[in-house]
Amino acid sequence: MKFYVSALVLLLAAALVIGHDVPCSVDETIKSILSQHYAKLELECVFVKNATAYSNCPEGYTATGCSCGSACGSWDIQSSNVCHCQCANMDWTAARCCRMKLP
Amino acid sequence: MKFYVSALVLLLAAALVIGHDVPCSVDETIKSILSQHYAKLELECVFVKNATAYSNCPEGYTATGCSCGSACGSWDIQSSNVCHCQCANMDWTAARCCRMKLP
Amino acid sequence: MKFYVSALVLLLAAALVIGHDVPCSVDETIKSILSQHYAKLELECVFVKNATAYSNCPEGYTATGCSCGSACGSWDIQSSNVCHCQCANMDWTAARCCRMKLP
Repeated sequence: MKFYVSALVLLLAAALVIGHDVPCSVDETIKSILSQHYAKLELECVFVKNATAYSNCPEGYTATGCSCGSACGSWDIQSSNVCHCQCANMDWTAARCCRMKLP
Repeated sequence: MKFYVSALVLLLAAALVIGHDVPCSVDETIKSILSQHYAKLELECVFVKNATAYSNCPEGYTATGCSCGSACGSWDIQSSNVCHCQCANMDWTAARCCRMKLP
Repeated sequence: MKFYVSALVLLLAAALVIGHDVPCSVDETIKSILSQHYAKLELECVFVKNATAYSNCPEGYTATGCSCGSACGSWDIQSSNVCHCQCANMDWTAARCCRMKLP
């Protein structure tokens, strides 16, 4: 009987020690999973050209800059995702469109 | 007495098993919270126009491209958040300013 | 002997209670670590100028816009990280290059 109780005390002590370790290993687990996720997080961009004075970004993308035909450098961005080239008789407009690529 | 000790052994075993399960459910919890957070993570941009050869981004934003008056396409970015149009007698300069929108 | 067993039962109960608390504190821990990480997450950009019709972004960066010599505003982006100015006899090309800066 004494043996059983001693064994129990030892096991219980072990369980408490393991239980105490959990917060530390959780911290490590969180940081490890976060790092793996972050490694996949990236800025993803596409270039969209259109034969008018306007060019639209795909759904979910935001325009970060615009390029225009006829060497024109005057443009504006409408509704966050539409490039508009302002020179007369624009033959083409291109939008650089970016988004966060989620893991 | 024997009954008590047996009951204790069973309880202890249960406690150890539950303790062992924790890392798995923690993994799931972390991944679930991460996914919710990521869904709110996005690239947020504003267009800032100014009637000189310079245009400044708001605090916390970085310039990703610039647009200039008079069809000018020659520009540079200073201190990461100031657009500068280089052609002579610039009537306006616009900065496309972006940042990470945190959840 | 009875004292030992009673003590064991109390200790065991304590261990189970501590074990039960873990999921809640884990949630808090995850959210706290996430917030700290997110605060360090930012859009980081560099401006790269080159004396030809092309300008390359450094490894890991994506071009978000291009600037050209001779007031030229017609450009395209090749392979996601190369700016190309399209006007004739380009004396310089600059790329605005951005990436996610990970914590």
